[in-house]
Parts: sequence; C-alpha cells; structure tokens
Amino acid sequence: MISAGTTLRRIRETKPLVHQITNYVVMNETANATLAIGALPVMAHAQEEVEEMARLASSLVINIGTLSEHWVEAMLLAGGAASARGIPVVLDPVGAGATAYRTQTSRRILDVVDVTVLRGNAGEVGTLVGAEAEVRGVESMSVAGEPADLAREAGRRLRLVASVTGPVDHVSDGERVLAVVNGHPLLSAVTGTGCISTALTGCFLAAKPEAPLEAAAEALAAFGVAAEDAADGAAGPGTFHARLYDALAALDPDTLDERTRIEEL
Amino acid sequence: MISAGTTLRRIRETKPLVHQITNYVVMNETANATLAIGALPVMAHAQEEVEEMARLASSLVINIGTLSEHWVEAMLLAGGAASARGIPVVLDPVGAGATAYRTQTSRRILDVVDVTVLRGNAGEVGTLVGAEAEVRGVESMSVAGEPADLAREAGRRLRLVASVTGPVDHVSDGERVLAVVNGHPLLSAVTGTGCISTALTGCFLAAKPEAPLEAAAEALAAFGVAAEDAADGAAGPGTFHARLYDALAALDPDTLDERTRIEEL
Amino acid sequence: MISAGTTLRRIRETKPLVHQITNYVVMNETANATLAIGALPVMAHAQEEVEEMARLASSLVINIGTLSEHWVEAMLLAGGAASARGIPVVLDPVGAGATAYRTQTSRRILDVVDVTVLRGNAGEVGTLVGAEAEVRGVESMSVAGEPADLAREAGRRLRLVASVTGPVDHVSDGERVLAVVNGHPLLSAVTGTGCISTALTGCFLAAKPEAPLEAAAEALAAFGVAAEDAADGAAGPGTFHARLYDALAALDPDTLDERTRIEEL
Repeated sequence: MISAGTTLRRIRETKPLVHQITNYVVMNETANATLAIGALPVMAHAQEEVEEMARLASSLVINIGTLSEHWVEAMLLAGGAASARGIPVVLDPVGAGATAYRTQTSRRILDVVDVTVLRGNAGEVGTLVGAEAEVRGVESMSVAGEPADLAREAGRRLRLVASVTGPVDHVSDGERVLAVVNGHPLLSAVTGTGCISTALTGCFLAAKPEAPLEAAAEALAAFGVAAEDAADGAAGPGTFHARLYDALAALDPDTLDERTRIEEL
Repeated sequence: MISAGTTLRRIRETKPLVHQITNYVVMNETANATLAIGALPVMAHAQEEVEEMARLASSLVINIGTLSEHWVEAMLLAGGAASARGIPVVLDPVGAGATAYRTQTSRRILDVVDVTVLRGNAGEVGTLVGAEAEVRGVESMSVAGEPADLAREAGRRLRLVASVTGPVDHVSDGERVLAVVNGHPLLSAVTGTGCISTALTGCFLAAKPEAPLEAAAEALAAFGVAAEDAADGAAGPGTFHARLYDALAALDPDTLDERTRIEEL
Repeated sequence: MISAGTTLRRIRETKPLVHQITNYVVMNETANATLAIGALPVMAHAQEEVEEMARLASSLVINIGTLSEHWVEAMLLAGGAASARGIPVVLDPVGAGATAYRTQTSRRILDVVDVTVLRGNAGEVGTLVGAEAEVRGVESMSVAGEPADLAREAGRRLRLVASVTGPVDHVSDGERVLAVVNGHPLLSAVTGTGCISTALTGCFLAAKPEAPLEAAAEALAAFGVAAEDAADGAAGPGTFHARLYDALAALDPDTLDERTRIEEL
C-alpha cells in the first residue's frame, strides 16, 4: 500500500539510523534533510569502520558524486556488509555517463552490492542500462525513449527498484511503474537536491524495507510536497533552500497522503 | 571570573586565528560560526602544513567527525605542534562509542596531544572514561549516571576540561562543575551544532587561554543565547540555521552576561 | 567591450559547464553560486577522471583552500588537460603566504598550467610576485604598495590576468587596470565569498574566453551587485548568505550594466 504519511510517521517514531557515504558537496545538506524528515544521519567513510557502521544502520546510502579510489573501496565494503545483513542500499550514480570512471564505478558497485534502489536522473540510469544517453557533468541532457520505459527497463535488467527523477519521477521494480508528479522547478536551481532525494529514499526505505518500490516513490512525493511548500514565499534559490528544511520538518503525516500525487501507470 | 561578554569583546578586538581540522559535513558551518563570533577560521589538514598552521594559530580544534587515516595523522601532528607551544587544543570525539575506530582514535589523540578541552555529548565522553554509554551513529542515546558527575569524572581522569553538552551542558575541570542552561531544542534539529559549539569553544579559549573551564562554559552559554535569539521567529530548522549566524554576529558584549545562565554546582 | 549584462545573458543562454576542483569548505556554496548565475557546476577531483572532465568543460576552476597531495596532483592533471585544449583556467591560491606548502603549490601550478586568471586577495597575490605581504590563515593582513600596482605587476610578471579582490577590486593583464567598486562589507562576514568570486570568474570566462580581463572584472562586478542586493534587508551574515543566491539568480542582464561600477584606471 502506498502511503507516504504512514511511512513518515514510522520514520518519526523509530528514528532510523541512515548511514551515508556521499559526496563532499552535499554532506551537510543530506544530513540536514535526514534530520528534518525525522531520521538520524551518520557520515562515515573510513575503510576501518564502514562495515561496522553499516551494520548499525537501518539503511545505507551510497553516492558517488565526488568519488575517488579510497572512497569507492569504502563504498564496496559498506555495501557488502549491508547486503550480507539484508540492510537496504540506495545507490546514486552521480555523473554516470559523463566520465568513464563514473560509469565503471557505478557498474562495479551494482555488481558487488545488492542495491535495493538506484536513484538517478534519466541520463545516469540510461547509461547504466545501455540506452543512448547524454550526460553533461552531473546533468542529464537527453536520453532516448520515454522515462517510464527507462525506469521499467532499468528495474527489470538490473533487478532492483529504479527511481528516475525528472520533471515527473518514475519508479519501477521492472514490472509496475509509479509516476510521482510532486515537486517544483526551484529544485533544479539548488545543487544537491537530487542527492537529498537519494538520502530521503534511504530514510523511507529504512522505515519500510519490505516494500522498496512504494518507499522510493513515497520519498520522492514527500520531498516534492516539501519543495512545493518551500517555494511558496521563497524569493529565489537561496531562501528556497533554507525553507526546504523547514518544510521537510513541517510535513504532517496526517495530511501528507492528500497531497502526494503518485499514480500507477 | 566568568564573563562571556568580556571574552566575546576580547575575541572581537583580537580576532584570533582558530585552526580547525574538522569534518567534511560541517566545515562551512564552523567556519561561518567562527567568523560570526568575531574570530578568523582557517581549515588546513595536509601533513605538509598542519604543524606550521597550528603554530600560527591561537587555538586548534580537532574534530573526528569524518575521520580517516591521513586526517588522523594530521590531527596528531598539529596537536603535537600546538601542545609543544602551549597553544590550547579542543577535541571533539564525534561518534566515540559508535565504532571501535572512533573510540580508539579519540584515545590515541588524548594520549599524544595535550588536549585542553574535550567537547562531546554524554555518550562520547562516557565512552572515553569507561562509563556504560550507548551511542548510535553520532547521537548519544544513553549513559549511566548524572551528567554533572560524568563531566567531573572525565575532567579528573583525563586531566582536562570536560565539556559535556546536552539539554543542560556540564563543564568541569575535575573539581568544579559549571552548568550551562542556555540553548534551544532546535539546535538538535540541525546537523553540526555540536561541532559549532566545539569551534566556538576554540574561539573563546583563544581569547581566554588562562581559564579554560570558564572559557568553555562561556562559549556554550554564548552559543545558547544566540540559539535562543535565532529560534525567535524561525519557521523551522532551515531558517533557524541561517538566523543562527545572524544571532552570533549580533551578540552584544555589553548585555551578554545578563542573558547567560551559567551556574556553579 | 565591458558589459557584464551581455556576458551574463550569454551564460544563461549557453549554460557552460564549469569544472571546479575546489576546497571542502565551499564546494556547496560555489556550486550553488554557479547554478544561480546560470552555469552548470561539476565537482570532480579523482586523478582517474579529471582530465576527461576538464576537456568536457568550458572553463576550469582550481582552488587550493584545503589542499593535499592527491588533490594537487589532480589539479595539475586537470590544468594540463585544460591548457592543452585552450580551455581557460582560474586559479585561487588560497592562503599563499600563510604556509610554505600553499606558496609552493601555487607556484607549482602557475609553472605547469596555463593559468588565465589568478584570483586572490592582496596578500596571496603579493606573495606570488614577491611583494612583502602578510597573510594570516586565509586572510590578507597587509601588503606593500598600492593594489592597482600590485595587480598590474602580477599580470605583467606572471603573464596572466591578475584579479586582486579587496574593498575595491583591481583586475589587470599587466597593462590595463580595471577597478571594480561594487560589493558590500557583509561579504567578508561569510566564509567562501572569495571562492565564490573565483567560481563566478570561471563562469564569465567560460562565456567570454576571448576577453579574460573584461570577463574577470565583469564577474566581480556582477557578484558585487548581487551582494548589494542581498545585503538590503539581511539581518546578518546568515540571512545575507541565503539571499546572496537569490540575488545572483535575480540579476537582470538588461539592467546589470547600469549598476556595475567598473572603471579603467
């Protein structure tokens, strides 16, 4: 059953620990978004401790935004430890398709780790399923075909839940496809909002590990509703950004479901 | 003598350089808090330069929030250089108790460096004095005993000033215990506010190196007053966070002492 | 021809990719400023990919604020790849003069890379041309002589465009000197505003590579105008900081030239 409100209530009650190995640009932002939604973030990337930390967590978020070899090794170790315990893992393949190193690293993680949800833009996910995709830096420029089909194809081929964000988000386990219409254009004016959606996916997954397709869609919908609230009264990307955490913290489990726009295609 | 206002005035007049080797999540935040209180932050972690930089500074802040081996080596080098010159050092043992690596690294730094103030939550400080403590990620979940006793015990055993933050903060040199009641619940809704309190401790210590117990308590009280001001009118953690720097910059040395609530137990 | 408005329009129309190898403290801030002005930021520092990423970009920004050996190697690789393709490079020698490592690294980059614009404060730039300069941490404390002369001297000796920021900014190619009077004192109350001016220099240079002297001055003027707008109504450094991105995004190409104050000396 899809109910972002129910899962949000569960997050607030259980305060799951969400281990994040993410990029330098957005660490503060994803930690604050995690706190605002009601979960507990922990950032740790040393090979000496990532396995221990991953085992303590309710979900693991891996984001390759500013990858380098030591960090990739840590991601593989943490991912392996999480997989072995059945702890859900979210992967954000930032910039896959832009450089060979990012594409290869994403594939390497997908090979070794039991990734539960792959959260990326159309160019990144398209690259990983072999579609014709154009990625410029960390932006998706174009990808062949419909995003719903891309999500389904990625879910099916990679055997995970593919969460493809864009003007409309598409989440698929390879069979079902959920479209999420919530959101606001200002999200693309602030760096790291994609990474925040990945972190929030980790939070929802931690509270609803039994239903990753639904959890992934609920996370995007909840974030989209918060963005809609934050944009109301914002004077630009800077005040929008500050208000985004206010809006996440103010999300009301009792009314959230009336506002989320998740449709099964 | 305890007077946060006097020490704040001194910071604003002398603009001490505060060298910070801290974590990726909060670097921007602690630098901005340092500037807002009136001191000059400098972030440098390369082994090639940390000793030289530490010697130029009026205090050194070591924070292990996102530790790894290269960084720990740099912390030890910088700490050693500061100790040799009598430059005060603040240590924030982020997550001690959560993983063995964090506990061992904190102990290693305490062994090698002449730490002036240890600033942590009850779980972290409790771990380092062998109390039964539960730490989840970087959050303190529970610790045996009273926080005032924990601070005194830590101060006595580790021969430093222990600054244990929580709903009420307790600062002790092993004999005297100062309780600081200023603060606001929104502080726990923003990541890195513990790290900011550590950085501000470094600023106050730089301006009042002769009285670390008082300086540590004054720093927490000043930060608490700023948090009270920032919360007034904030719509949530995001706007509170932005307003926190406004409030730190607006702290008035002339009226601060009327507002700080520091009590000797 | 000097026209910040024309260059800004060009940035918004072409959305150039600006590759940034910068410091941990300001990555989020420079990425958001880059987005707000209308360009696309990408942060990548692994030796495995920096050359490939630099070749995809319209300009490269190198900032040594939290340098270490792996990062310096990546800066040299990326800078070399950019130079070989004629892609403009901006160097921010953060803290040159404060430690030997920072001075030497800045010189090493200047030797190996075809730096188009050197953007620093008077102490940093003065250090690199052998002037008597005092740098404290990352702050310029004093430097012998007039800033206009320093900029001209640096431009001439280092054979690049020197962009020396301060209360008034001076930009010179070694012959002509442009003074930029826009700006606001609150800029110095927020960490990383120097780094943001460097990133924006990269954006303007990407859109006007044929005229680096003008592009560098226009970037500083546009940022100064945004700071003036952001300060209007800000309650301190925290709200000013958030409003700065609003103001950058709201800059109007049609009216910008009326507000910029760039004078040829």
